[in-house]
Amino acid sequence: MDNRQIILAQRPVGTIDESTTSLVESPRPTCGRDEALVKVAMLSIDPTIRTWMNDAPGYLPPIGIGEVIRGSGTGVVVETNSPRYEVGDIVFGMTGWQEWALATEQNRFSVVPVGSGLDLATMMNVTGVTGITAYFGLNDIGKFRSGDVVVVSGAAGATGSVAGQIARAGGASKVVGIAGGSEKCAEVIEEYGFDDCLDYRTGNLRQRLREACPKGIDLYFDNVGGEILDAVLANIAMHARIVLCGAISQYNVMEKPHGLSNTAMLIMRRARMEGFIVLDYSDRFVEAQLELASMTLDGRLAHREHLIMGLENAPAALNLLFSGGNHGKTLVVLDESVRLA
Amino acid sequence: MDNRQIILAQRPVGTIDESTTSLVESPRPTCGRDEALVKVAMLSIDPTIRTWMNDAPGYLPPIGIGEVIRGSGTGVVVETNSPRYEVGDIVFGMTGWQEWALATEQNRFSVVPVGSGLDLATMMNVTGVTGITAYFGLNDIGKFRSGDVVVVSGAAGATGSVAGQIARAGGASKVVGIAGGSEKCAEVIEEYGFDDCLDYRTGNLRQRLREACPKGIDLYFDNVGGEILDAVLANIAMHARIVLCGAISQYNVMEKPHGLSNTAMLIMRRARMEGFIVLDYSDRFVEAQLELASMTLDGRLAHREHLIMGLENAPAALNLLFSGGNHGKTLVVLDESVRLA
Repeated sequence: MDNRQIILAQRPVGTIDESTTSLVESPRPTCGRDEALVKVAMLSIDPTIRTWMNDAPGYLPPIGIGEVIRGSGTGVVVETNSPRYEVGDIVFGMTGWQEWALATEQNRFSVVPVGSGLDLATMMNVTGVTGITAYFGLNDIGKFRSGDVVVVSGAAGATGSVAGQIARAGGASKVVGIAGGSEKCAEVIEEYGFDDCLDYRTGNLRQRLREACPKGIDLYFDNVGGEILDAVLANIAMHARIVLCGAISQYNVMEKPHGLSNTAMLIMRRARMEGFIVLDYSDRFVEAQLELASMTLDGRLAHREHLIMGLENAPAALNLLFSGGNHGKTLVVLDESVRLA
Repeated sequence: MDNRQIILAQRPVGTIDESTTSLVESPRPTCGRDEALVKVAMLSIDPTIRTWMNDAPGYLPPIGIGEVIRGSGTGVVVETNSPRYEVGDIVFGMTGWQEWALATEQNRFSVVPVGSGLDLATMMNVTGVTGITAYFGLNDIGKFRSGDVVVVSGAAGATGSVAGQIARAGGASKVVGIAGGSEKCAEVIEEYGFDDCLDYRTGNLRQRLREACPKGIDLYFDNVGGEILDAVLANIAMHARIVLCGAISQYNVMEKPHGLSNTAMLIMRRARMEGFIVLDYSDRFVEAQLELASMTLDGRLAHREHLIMGLENAPAALNLLFSGGNHGKTLVVLDESVRLA
């Protein structure tokens, strides 16, 4: 039986299109010593995948031409030569965009607990990489404190919506989202319980942030970079903390990126801007997952999954993140039959 | 007897010129209750004074039109109604650009210790605000650690030269300066003992930094901002710390400031960029002053003072900082007779 895979055909310039990836069929991999064969059930579609397609230095090497697109996912162990896994285990790891993946000593998977009360898509959302990113970004980099005025960009997205809700639950004095379009802004307020949400598409964000946060912004969780980050910098409070999580506005930019003009505010306000990569926290993922699962089960953490059916639609799913066409955590379903008991 | 003062005549656009300030004569101030009258001996000429001339939000309010130019200096108490001061005390504080100043409850001065072995100009340099800024910036914001690769811009300046020497004395694996012109670069290496110094005027700084720091920059002490900061960002090491102390390259800019393009490196390298204002450390100044005086007396801290005679030359002295015409700490001498015993 073949393994359908999506490979990188050529490096994209700007937005990815049909020429960027190819759907190919390869032999199903064979399970070697200390390895397990995983039938992939669901892929997590994350903005960072776009950055790996560029031939540029990053926190991981670029995806090579002809290589399977890198990405995380869940699946079921169907064959195992490793004491780490049993047949039937539902596992999470770097499956890549393909139907069959190997869990190896280099590419270890974690076994997903069953019986928690969360379904697979919810688990991939709130306790997946995007939720964990929100947790460590807000708490460890942002040093969130009760009473903070918190602003979150990409507020309707998988990471932003969780970051804002953790702040809300933790006693922020105000949580303001930034999102694209009135529909998403309504979602951020009504579904995710933010106090306010500003539509960056209607312009004059700097002034509207000043009105929404007249005492200044204590903590900014940045998923977008560029002009929005600049508008926030102009409005930071004393000792503000800016968490640089991603810069989705810049990933498809073909020319010079937007240059930040307001970084002198970091001096005036004795403020800090710090970047991080969630993989650095892998030995503490369980801490975040337990907290996020608990918040979800007791209703403090609202979530929404955007399911897209079929491996062949993974590239289009990735583009949804950049067009803003997604609502919630974007997941590609390869096998609907896999469920957490 | 009159008090000669330099006041702000109009707000400068770009570099200050003859129309920016006026030399005026006012009555010598009278010494009220809890006040002391100070005859000013020496003024500290610092880049931050230029920022106070703009009508822009800052860490202190702008200097008003018609007000004496704000700045720190030393002088001698000649009359006192305050138990804090005795006649003959040499004091340091915000004298402003004038011959006579009042020490008040709102504008307190500190009494300079005599007999330390440091002369007045040296004390205003290494244990003055610029030296103290280097100390807290490097240690508290930059979290300097032995073994760090350290880069300092404005390396021939009063703050930069001290920052690099503290790092050198503290066991940095390499200390690289950035300065303007071959003469200053030679001074940074030969007088201040940096391992290397790059002349930003000869271009291609990004590439030359890569060659000078092939393993990346752990700590960058930034006095200049703009394009130099951008070139450093492109070369930071994992977990780098960027100390934003000043942005002298941007203070005279009339158009939009240089936009930073390489801040995404803060994410890739899990790095931090943080601004500070030394006034926030005022309750710990003595800690820095004792360390800096000790380093100076035992020969670990080289220093150079650029003395300019006469109050009327203070505006030209300030401009020297921006043209790069100064060598070392720039001080304006009003009264040569004042000496530390």
